[in-house]
Amino acid sequence: MTTTPIKSVDWEVFVAALVGVEVIVDAAQVAKLSQDYHTFSPILQRQLAGKVGDIVVRPATEAEVLQVAAVCAKYRVPVTVRGAGTGNYGQCVPLHGGVILDMSRMQRIPWIEAGIARLEAGVKLATLDKKARVSGWEIRMAPSTYRTATIGGFIAGGSGGIGSITYGQLRDRGNLLALKVVTIEDEPRVIELRGDDVQKVNHAWGVNGIIIELEIPLAPAYPWVEIIVTFDDFMTAARFGQALGNADGMVKKLITVFASPIPSYFTALRQYIPDKTHAAFLIVAESCLELLPGLIQEYNGKLTYQKSAQDVGKGVNLGEFTWNHTTLHTRSVDPSITYLQSLFPTDKSLQTVEHMFHHFGDEVMMHLEFIRVNGTVIPAALQLVRYTTEERLNEIMRYHEANGVFIANPHTYIIEDGGRKQMDPEQLKFKQMVDPYGLMNPGKIRALMTQ
Amino acid sequence: MTTTPIKSVDWEVFVAALVGVEVIVDAAQVAKLSQDYHTFSPILQRQLAGKVGDIVVRPATEAEVLQVAAVCAKYRVPVTVRGAGTGNYGQCVPLHGGVILDMSRMQRIPWIEAGIARLEAGVKLATLDKKARVSGWEIRMAPSTYRTATIGGFIAGGSGGIGSITYGQLRDRGNLLALKVVTIEDEPRVIELRGDDVQKVNHAWGVNGIIIELEIPLAPAYPWVEIIVTFDDFMTAARFGQALGNADGMVKKLITVFASPIPSYFTALRQYIPDKTHAAFLIVAESCLELLPGLIQEYNGKLTYQKSAQDVGKGVNLGEFTWNHTTLHTRSVDPSITYLQSLFPTDKSLQTVEHMFHHFGDEVMMHLEFIRVNGTVIPAALQLVRYTTEERLNEIMRYHEANGVFIANPHTYIIEDGGRKQMDPEQLKFKQMVDPYGLMNPGKIRALMTQ
Repeated sequence: MTTTPIKSVDWEVFVAALVGVEVIVDAAQVAKLSQDYHTFSPILQRQLAGKVGDIVVRPATEAEVLQVAAVCAKYRVPVTVRGAGTGNYGQCVPLHGGVILDMSRMQRIPWIEAGIARLEAGVKLATLDKKARVSGWEIRMAPSTYRTATIGGFIAGGSGGIGSITYGQLRDRGNLLALKVVTIEDEPRVIELRGDDVQKVNHAWGVNGIIIELEIPLAPAYPWVEIIVTFDDFMTAARFGQALGNADGMVKKLITVFASPIPSYFTALRQYIPDKTHAAFLIVAESCLELLPGLIQEYNGKLTYQKSAQDVGKGVNLGEFTWNHTTLHTRSVDPSITYLQSLFPTDKSLQTVEHMFHHFGDEVMMHLEFIRVNGTVIPAALQLVRYTTEERLNEIMRYHEANGVFIANPHTYIIEDGGRKQMDPEQLKFKQMVDPYGLMNPGKIRALMTQ
Repeated sequence: MTTTPIKSVDWEVFVAALVGVEVIVDAAQVAKLSQDYHTFSPILQRQLAGKVGDIVVRPATEAEVLQVAAVCAKYRVPVTVRGAGTGNYGQCVPLHGGVILDMSRMQRIPWIEAGIARLEAGVKLATLDKKARVSGWEIRMAPSTYRTATIGGFIAGGSGGIGSITYGQLRDRGNLLALKVVTIEDEPRVIELRGDDVQKVNHAWGVNGIIIELEIPLAPAYPWVEIIVTFDDFMTAARFGQALGNADGMVKKLITVFASPIPSYFTALRQYIPDKTHAAFLIVAESCLELLPGLIQEYNGKLTYQKSAQDVGKGVNLGEFTWNHTTLHTRSVDPSITYLQSLFPTDKSLQTVEHMFHHFGDEVMMHLEFIRVNGTVIPAALQLVRYTTEERLNEIMRYHEANGVFIANPHTYIIEDGGRKQMDPEQLKFKQMVDPYGLMNPGKIRALMTQ
């Protein structure tokens, strides 16, 4: 497999070969579409500065994708696939220029049936959600960017989100039913993967074929209520989150716990969260509402905000302050802040959370997202870090790992150095088949650099 | 509180006071309605032999229940409330005669709204399920007796069932929203309990007021598929069950695992389960179907039976062979067999299951029901026991307890000696208020015997 693609191309000839397909050559627009939200990381910001594609191609149909793939293969041009570019790992930033393949025009939803949707990769999560709700369903999980993010981008680069408290992570068996990808070969093919075979492409950062269509399971659309509960003590807030997570009779889609002063960065919500208090942001089914006060009281919490199911869509949307939107809102006030991504060990007494909370104090502000992992509710975390130096940031991450906290390092664009640690051999094998020239997002896989 | 009720009553006068309410005095019918399925236990069979009520009263409305309660209070007559009498703990058998209060005529369903149903105590679970499905919902959990069992009886005496793999147990916060009970006093009252207050009556075996109406949360009605998988090795079957339970992306409502020779007792299913194989009975959402083969293969299982969602209601219903219907079917072939009720400790490697399986061999045949307890999937079990003596049965239960297995002894009619161990002080307090003369199901609570 070629790892450093040939890249001496006459772009006029190249574009001419793409006749009929939308192409953007305007430098400012190309630069914009070569970006994602890796800027949350000062490390990636430095490493990826100035990296841009040569042109943007925006296919609207499978036939057009096949056409683009053939032309890219012919001219050995690197291809960086993107959806809305809401990711945070630089996976939409091309290291070696080439084509930015913007999938956001592929917006068909062929069908939504009882509990399953078939859709093209460029469909926005919010659009699918709205359509599915007509028949009583909704998406199982969503990133905080769900108004703009596409399903293809979410599957390629996401791990979970709002809904993971019930359905686990995107890569868990059952959360993705089928994928259709286009290969980048002299004669590109369309390959449909079903069942466990989807794992060959799932969460592979767009290096394993161009995802053009997906089949995903849906969740029942409950009437949801959004709630803020405040606490005087952080660990009590965290334990409340764990207890609600463990309550099998309570249907929920979000349990987020913020240590003070994180909520103070949410300007729109300051009236509901007194200074120096810690907060839990919850999305629960309406049927749980009468049961919450008892649980809140057990943990000395105070319900300060409640938006009923009928008012969904009005006013603020709590989900948009959670997951990595927490980092977004915080950085819009203080851009020197960065973040971690971590998964605490299975321990319902939350001892490691408590240790880290006290050990780092204000330098690492605790932001817990409770999710289900392998059948058990545990806290994931996107802690906010008051950044000083790269060395200190690495030290913080190493300390977590030494204490049993799994770190999915968001300060690297190398896939193996992030959450994956090691490329799945099946994925590598599949990559060799669908991308024989190594054109897809080159430079992001360590395993291919040493060949 | 009086614990041995006064019982010198002129039944003609008594019945005359019940004018307008349906009363059964025919001895054969009264004897029949004084029974439940405690006969699964040779101990209870002996202890409760010959225990019958004096008359059966069958109220159809709240007003009639109030009338009955007033008359019972006036004459200090014991009241044993029953639904369909499908329980197994003798809780429908009166120790001191009196009135059998049959609630099965109270069948109104005032409303079913998004995710919640309000219904009278005598509604059969299958009836509610059918009605709820019209609007896309169904009951969250059901006993294997769900075709005949009533919701009032299930809440009063049940612990969980088909569906508990997702929603936990009936007593878990969130699985019961409201209860309306009638007190047995000189001037009976109607009391509505909501939120956490429902726990004053939930799972209290009909001793804490006459449950007349309930509000319960519903579950989304997925298209369900029924499946049998067979295995050559029992522990592999058990580990498969645990793995499916842990798979957060797979929506399921039943994971039952039977050790050989249990499936050989299911005459209707013998063609699907070869001799000497162990079997998993599953009910999973249709959207999981393509993902199951991969998981089955990992555990060397063999899919031998599959009933699609469209065929639900046709042919055999796998759920009817699980939970305590396993015991029913087995005893219909070999009435000398009895059973245990237990909950294994949280341990995803299933070491205690393995130990018990080998330790007792064929004497205690393993029947696992995976359920969620406090946010984690663990195996409950209703092991089948080749009964020899009461002493040996007790020894078997003590051995389990000594090894960390929780036993809800189904061979006693004393509430505290079963699953509860100790009466909840809140429940006792509530009992004193709603049943000041101690007329409800007297003799079943140890805490009241010593007063």
